[in-house]
Amino acid sequence: MLDGLFRPRSVAVVGASNNPFSIGNIVIRNLAAHGFKGPIFPINPKERAIRSFKCFKSVLDVPDEVDLVNISVNYNLVPGVLTECGKKGVKFCIVHTAGFKEVGAEGIKREREMVALAHSLGMRIFGPNSQGIQNSDPEVSVYANFTFVPMKPGNISVIAQGGGMGELLKLHLHKAGLGHRLYCSYGNEADLTMPELLAYYGEDPGTKAIMMQIESFKDPAAFLEVASRITPRKPILAIKAGRTREGSVAVSSHTGTLVDQAAMATALFRKAGVVEFSDSEQMIKTGIALSTQDPPKGNRIGMITNTGGPGIQMTDESVDRGLVLAKWSEAGYQKLKASLYAEASLGNPVDVVATGGPEHYQAAVETLLAEEGVDMVLVFFVTAPFVNLDEIAKRIREAVSKSKKPVAMVVETIPEYGRLIELLRGAGLPVYEFAEDGARSLAAMWRHTKLAARPREEPPALPVDRAAAEAIVARYSGKNAYLTQADAFAVLAAYGVPVPRLAVVPGPDGLATAARAVGFPCVLKVDAADVVHKSDEGGVVLDIGDPETLAAAYRTMHDRFAARGARFLLMEQKAPGREVIVGVSESPGLGSLVMFGLGGVFVEVMRDVAFAVAPLSRPEAREMMAETKGYRILTGMRGQAGVDLEALEELVLRVSRLAADFPAIVEMDLNPVFAYPKGTAPAAVDVRMKVR
Amino acid sequence: MLDGLFRPRSVAVVGASNNPFSIGNIVIRNLAAHGFKGPIFPINPKERAIRSFKCFKSVLDVPDEVDLVNISVNYNLVPGVLTECGKKGVKFCIVHTAGFKEVGAEGIKREREMVALAHSLGMRIFGPNSQGIQNSDPEVSVYANFTFVPMKPGNISVIAQGGGMGELLKLHLHKAGLGHRLYCSYGNEADLTMPELLAYYGEDPGTKAIMMQIESFKDPAAFLEVASRITPRKPILAIKAGRTREGSVAVSSHTGTLVDQAAMATALFRKAGVVEFSDSEQMIKTGIALSTQDPPKGNRIGMITNTGGPGIQMTDESVDRGLVLAKWSEAGYQKLKASLYAEASLGNPVDVVATGGPEHYQAAVETLLAEEGVDMVLVFFVTAPFVNLDEIAKRIREAVSKSKKPVAMVVETIPEYGRLIELLRGAGLPVYEFAEDGARSLAAMWRHTKLAARPREEPPALPVDRAAAEAIVARYSGKNAYLTQADAFAVLAAYGVPVPRLAVVPGPDGLATAARAVGFPCVLKVDAADVVHKSDEGGVVLDIGDPETLAAAYRTMHDRFAARGARFLLMEQKAPGREVIVGVSESPGLGSLVMFGLGGVFVEVMRDVAFAVAPLSRPEAREMMAETKGYRILTGMRGQAGVDLEALEELVLRVSRLAADFPAIVEMDLNPVFAYPKGTAPAAVDVRMKVR
Repeated sequence: MLDGLFRPRSVAVVGASNNPFSIGNIVIRNLAAHGFKGPIFPINPKERAIRSFKCFKSVLDVPDEVDLVNISVNYNLVPGVLTECGKKGVKFCIVHTAGFKEVGAEGIKREREMVALAHSLGMRIFGPNSQGIQNSDPEVSVYANFTFVPMKPGNISVIAQGGGMGELLKLHLHKAGLGHRLYCSYGNEADLTMPELLAYYGEDPGTKAIMMQIESFKDPAAFLEVASRITPRKPILAIKAGRTREGSVAVSSHTGTLVDQAAMATALFRKAGVVEFSDSEQMIKTGIALSTQDPPKGNRIGMITNTGGPGIQMTDESVDRGLVLAKWSEAGYQKLKASLYAEASLGNPVDVVATGGPEHYQAAVETLLAEEGVDMVLVFFVTAPFVNLDEIAKRIREAVSKSKKPVAMVVETIPEYGRLIELLRGAGLPVYEFAEDGARSLAAMWRHTKLAARPREEPPALPVDRAAAEAIVARYSGKNAYLTQADAFAVLAAYGVPVPRLAVVPGPDGLATAARAVGFPCVLKVDAADVVHKSDEGGVVLDIGDPETLAAAYRTMHDRFAARGARFLLMEQKAPGREVIVGVSESPGLGSLVMFGLGGVFVEVMRDVAFAVAPLSRPEAREMMAETKGYRILTGMRGQAGVDLEALEELVLRVSRLAADFPAIVEMDLNPVFAYPKGTAPAAVDVRMKVR
Repeated sequence: MLDGLFRPRSVAVVGASNNPFSIGNIVIRNLAAHGFKGPIFPINPKERAIRSFKCFKSVLDVPDEVDLVNISVNYNLVPGVLTECGKKGVKFCIVHTAGFKEVGAEGIKREREMVALAHSLGMRIFGPNSQGIQNSDPEVSVYANFTFVPMKPGNISVIAQGGGMGELLKLHLHKAGLGHRLYCSYGNEADLTMPELLAYYGEDPGTKAIMMQIESFKDPAAFLEVASRITPRKPILAIKAGRTREGSVAVSSHTGTLVDQAAMATALFRKAGVVEFSDSEQMIKTGIALSTQDPPKGNRIGMITNTGGPGIQMTDESVDRGLVLAKWSEAGYQKLKASLYAEASLGNPVDVVATGGPEHYQAAVETLLAEEGVDMVLVFFVTAPFVNLDEIAKRIREAVSKSKKPVAMVVETIPEYGRLIELLRGAGLPVYEFAEDGARSLAAMWRHTKLAARPREEPPALPVDRAAAEAIVARYSGKNAYLTQADAFAVLAAYGVPVPRLAVVPGPDGLATAARAVGFPCVLKVDAADVVHKSDEGGVVLDIGDPETLAAAYRTMHDRFAARGARFLLMEQKAPGREVIVGVSESPGLGSLVMFGLGGVFVEVMRDVAFAVAPLSRPEAREMMAETKGYRILTGMRGQAGVDLEALEELVLRVSRLAADFPAIVEMDLNPVFAYPKGTAPAAVDVRMKVR
């Protein structure tokens, strides 16, 4: 439990000074200005008082228990301070001080030693190189942080790796007249981890929704586990920074080429049920809506406007973002007709026209909210000189008070009429400046609803021969090398992935035995680590129909490759099927990703592939497959038969289980997999597999 | 010239009253409040004075010349007012009054009669059902409009079909501390057209850039012509409202299915060099930048920040939007190193760190602007408690004053520090709240630069036999019918589009003659309007190699289709080539669009097609082709040969010329066209063509 960090009964500030630009001074100012409920103890051997708080030479001199200590002394002094804190029985230290991991090898050592020291003293470290924490709960009101945005109670909690982004999120909640609940920007994450902090947010009763900014995942598995537990109950909105960073590209592998950081974070967020954003503004505006509105139960939007153009913009944006325009019941239509001007539009959006007044807005909002077919309402209002603005706000307030459905407002007005916006915000309505923002925010709330409602299944138990795979993988461990084809197929086979019959050809004498095992027609392949593009180099002979052709093919290939120490493989020739590619790539910090797509132009030209984090549940496997545009071909279209999707899903699940069981398999490409019509198992006819 | 409208020396307001909520009263208030330079004449037979301006019974009583009249009387009274205006020698009337085209047939008639009357009196009508016009030029200062956003001089001009959207554009220029130049929202566009108004904006010396909102194009050709003339000199930013409206879909034709309103407007804007937006907020924010900054000469962005996270957001957004991260020269790098703190990041973005002060920002901005490899600069600043904000603004101001390159600022601060933003805006800098907005606005300015710099060529002169095509098309004119295959191929051939050799089969006796003309192998096809999916219905026999097979195929097909009055066609069997689809669809109000894409999965599954407005120039044809993802296949990839792109371009140009010459051809599908390797002409092997 992190109550000692987020609900401290007292705070000491080590490194406080009377320099108003020093971190310690600012932390004391923030604590005092926001009415921290416990005592504040500045620690500085040279001062009598700081900001009128009695100053102590050491935390050991404080005549009270100390729960939390903010430390901003030079890094050389930190160990001494920690030792004193340990003696005092302090449980949590926020280390603002920089000069640790972020400065390289020496700092990393310093950081490790600091954490070890803290643990030996029974303490946890927040940071170092960190901002600090805040909790606006009036029972605590702790602002143990040196930033500048004022704090007031709210119900959105913020957790940001980057301090500037964290501040931005707070700032815009503040500008919208809202507060926040918990806040932290955790810096180097040396000890207390982001997932630990997130778990605390999840349990905090005052937190309705969580906004996150993440620059890198230190422990993606822990994040996944914690976030997955929270998202069915509370929305998590997140940005992964750096989506265009060009990672290193493994040219020899499709999977390596196509996986990028953005795809990986997206897969992780989806699995965890987190609503992902790339744009900070859109995330914040959604957070603003979630502060006062519940997520919609469905995706049918009802819209109201008093002028056409913005109504069209709302419509376009809603449809683009996956919302559906609601239709009214006959009773609803008649109620609108009876309540509005003759020239009003009664469709969706309802246009009450520019002269529409308070009673028209009230009737329209009430009617739409009462409709069973409406899940959310978006109201646009451009202030007209003809209309009583206070009354508009009052009537809209009355109308929304009768419903639990989410409502967003867009108000187009000059700053002089700002009171209207205050009145609407006072009624708990999110108020935006642009029609599109309202539609986007409601649509993002719907994304949460959908994610929270997804079937959550465990990855299925699959009968696999893990020991057999282990025995092969172990032989390559530590070599960062590709498996031979024979070994790679054997690993797949151990996991129940259908592969062609195959046999290693020990030499010309073994041809007949191998051919008996495999049968005709068959394929002769070179199997050597340094022959990457086998076909291009003449290392594959297809459609071998009899022993004589096989012998001739073997001689040719032997002459070509034997000098390079190559081995040879005889494989069953599979009938051509629909080409699919299934890949795996392991990303340090994110785990193993499974990739799926159709082969040929789909992958090479269109890059039409989807990713998911291994191991997959059945719904996740099907969702990933269905996400590709080429999926329509697999289901059958234009009179062409589809493929056996259940069998293909089973293959994907087994590959994902293999990837999850062996993180050392850093790269795997089943390319192509042949998929066949219903009733015929697919087959991986070529494979590349690399072990770290 | 529209000087009488936008630079009137006097304005009369017919329908003025002392009701402060009446349009006439508000127009007088707006004119007077904004210091209109000429006299204002209220016209109302029942009043002595309105807002202290002497009131006249009729415009004929005004003791002065009248350039412009605002009319808001009931529509029944409009003709009488116009007649008096005509006698008075008025040249322009703004008709606010509603009750015309927008109310249906009777209103359309009323509108036509009104325009005819005005023309007979030598007058032009603006509207009806319109807001009005504004011109902030201090020599005129005319606010002949009933809206509420205050006017001050600026250099962005706004032209909006929807009044609400026009007001929104003005409003946000105002909120950003900027004014605007010309403004109009033109309502029903009964007489004065949007292209006429736009042409005037283009010539206005005080207009630096133009923002537009368009709901429907009344005369797309005129718009294209006018906008194309303006965009090389002044940026035009535009939104076409209603991009998701589901148009009617012609199920029988790929082109009809794939063309939508959004694609059509996009093609039109691109041809005209207009920078298109779907989001009103992004357009406005770009307009704000253009008000004080020149578009960049290139796409290399240099960025400065004092905190990491927003720097990443700027980077991501810049790269996503097609900007390139600039690299500094060694001298620039050294200058940054010498000027900034040791812990600063000297790459792109430059991170001056949170304690970076005025001199650091000045040095960074100056250095980046002086770099030859930098075309634009984006500066992020989160206010830190350590820094003198006024001094920051002053130093950045100094730094930017030395360069003509565009600079955008993003400032993250609380409203209490608003003075900083005012100071920066006072220096002509656009200031945004979100990192992404800065990047998006600079990127949109770059889009303008690119569009303005495109090669502008006339569509090439192509030798075609227009008369031959005309003779065939004329036979179908007015029938809204599909051409027979034979006729459709003949029209293509008349325009030099390569088609297979073909012959109509008059009956079993003509088979031999037809076969001699076409040669073997050949294809026998049914040619009947009601056989839409010929292959599916057994109406195509391929690969006929000899007279006997031909005779048998003819008998079978005759038995199947003769009862339906079908005719039969014998065609040369072309060797299979790379399948391409070229289509044309005519959209009322937008002209003929040419569609291009690869056949098969590219069009059916991926909808990977591009559109352009006919007739195409050579660069436009190539640009359209290159826009499809499948284009990479046409150029050759992965060791596979490409196709003859010049020959394919020629075919596209000829189709586009045909579409432009015959707007009555409302639909055309060349599907497939076989494209062949260099040196071999492509061939349209199937065609559907429909004439209105």
